[in-house]
Amino acid sequence: MKFFQTEISLEPASRGFHLITHKVLEAIPELHDIRVGQLQVFIKHTSASLTINENADPTVRIDFESHFNKMVPENAPYYKHTLEGPDDMPAHIKASLLDSSVTLPVTNGQLNLGIWQGIYLCEHRDHGGSRNLVITAFGI
Amino acid sequence: MKFFQTEISLEPASRGFHLITHKVLEAIPELHDIRVGQLQVFIKHTSASLTINENADPTVRIDFESHFNKMVPENAPYYKHTLEGPDDMPAHIKASLLDSSVTLPVTNGQLNLGIWQGIYLCEHRDHGGSRNLVITAFGI
Amino acid sequence: MKFFQTEISLEPASRGFHLITHKVLEAIPELHDIRVGQLQVFIKHTSASLTINENADPTVRIDFESHFNKMVPENAPYYKHTLEGPDDMPAHIKASLLDSSVTLPVTNGQLNLGIWQGIYLCEHRDHGGSRNLVITAFGI
Repeated sequence: MKFFQTEISLEPASRGFHLITHKVLEAIPELHDIRVGQLQVFIKHTSASLTINENADPTVRIDFESHFNKMVPENAPYYKHTLEGPDDMPAHIKASLLDSSVTLPVTNGQLNLGIWQGIYLCEHRDHGGSRNLVITAFGI
Repeated sequence: MKFFQTEISLEPASRGFHLITHKVLEAIPELHDIRVGQLQVFIKHTSASLTINENADPTVRIDFESHFNKMVPENAPYYKHTLEGPDDMPAHIKASLLDSSVTLPVTNGQLNLGIWQGIYLCEHRDHGGSRNLVITAFGI
Repeated sequence: MKFFQTEISLEPASRGFHLITHKVLEAIPELHDIRVGQLQVFIKHTSASLTINENADPTVRIDFESHFNKMVPENAPYYKHTLEGPDDMPAHIKASLLDSSVTLPVTNGQLNLGIWQGIYLCEHRDHGGSRNLVITAFGI
């Protein structure tokens, strides 16, 4: 049984959806030693999140941002948690709708993803700053 | 420590929500050898997804389809990713709202689910075709 | 390799979002024996769910309840699964939008969460009753 874990800090990203698969892979080269296993990426924040989606056409990521802004609007009249700005409470809700982690199968030292799948950092704040990830891989 | 992994291909399913618990269990009989562990089912696509929900009344799955179509409509005026048809961009968003995987506890060689819980394949495309799953089980 | 698993029953909670991090930690003291690993909390129900979000300001949890009630309303005209009351079908949909489990990294015998992160029990029914959790921790 092998168990690897590392933490990385991502540079501040603009509000929106960003592909980070390559950054995750660079951070954990020990993945190559796992024949069968799993990799988890966990984000240590409540106003940014992670998901898996289409890795090719940038308009997909633009449409994600547009739709999440519609589905979870700023300045909803029922928000009480408004002290940290209009983008804060929607960011918390979006983070839970997406997720704080992704868990991926590992096969023969590689992520076993579909050809169109990539890992998204979902930055829900206007100025979210640097974001910290815990990356854990294990298997045999 | 035991680690098992297999891939299966599901036959094309109609747009909507479908119970696949039995297909997952058939694919990984080694589950019976795990006393304490986990099972993950991962879908290698970005326009279909997996979730856990009610396994008895088919109207629950019909209502899921109705509600997701309302919450993530086709032909929203702000979509830019429209080349692959009106059902494509909503499918990507629905897939991230639900999830690309489910992870379940394993106890005494069985999935340790609640009595009403089952695994859903969520097919978000009109003609999604066959869908591939990676099933990983591990434990002691 | 270490593998621990336990089940706990939470006392009935009012409809809404509740911090349960301390209850999870109390249930699995063996966590202290894991240097690098993961902890999963799984809820054995389809009308309540788990998520990770802000652990400080109670208004965040109130706003979650308000927003989910807007995004997944009761008495939508297209619901067919209505026999168990107006809060039932929305509860199923909310449970899948959030999730039936959370998986957290473990580092040096502790949950490796961000400073503002806590585990929420999301009770989507008016009278959901007691809720059962399976807690699984493993690592080296």
